[in-house]
Amino acid sequence: MPKYHAKVFVTLKPSILDPQGRTVERALSHLNHTNVGTVRIGKYIELTLSGERADVEGQLRDITENVLSNPIMEDARWELEELQ
Amino acid sequence: MPKYHAKVFVTLKPSILDPQGRTVERALSHLNHTNVGTVRIGKYIELTLSGERADVEGQLRDITENVLSNPIMEDARWELEELQ
Repeated sequence: MPKYHAKVFVTLKPSILDPQGRTVERALSHLNHTNVGTVRIGKYIELTLSGERADVEGQLRDITENVLSNPIMEDARWELEELQ
Repeated sequence: MPKYHAKVFVTLKPSILDPQGRTVERALSHLNHTNVGTVRIGKYIELTLSGERADVEGQLRDITENVLSNPIMEDARWELEELQ
């Protein structure tokens, strides 16, 4: 059965405040990185799955939307790559 | 001055235990996603910078290694894209 490596990127929606990102912005500014603008902090999840590609894609969509992210506040996208 | 959009990916080194990832693995298994193997959870940081490309690259390397990640426990990589 084919094996896949999936990468899921979860980011706060643009309208949602990101206090952690704001804190990093201020820290960078104090470290003289004054040319750094907005900083936004999200999650990066790697997982492995086995199965047929069409099934795995549907399953990954479900996992991303229902387990790994909160669709009210977050956007999520994923990439799927077959392992050799 | 050119503006850039940077994406930084911070992951735990393979030898470091990831309890948050293990918890997601177990949750997925209980939700009948039994074909999901390892889950590893990292950080995904987006930031904007302005300046000349060579300067921005050096600065981003510094920020990634010294502010956004802990090189003892984490691996980090980044991508830089010029904004139009």
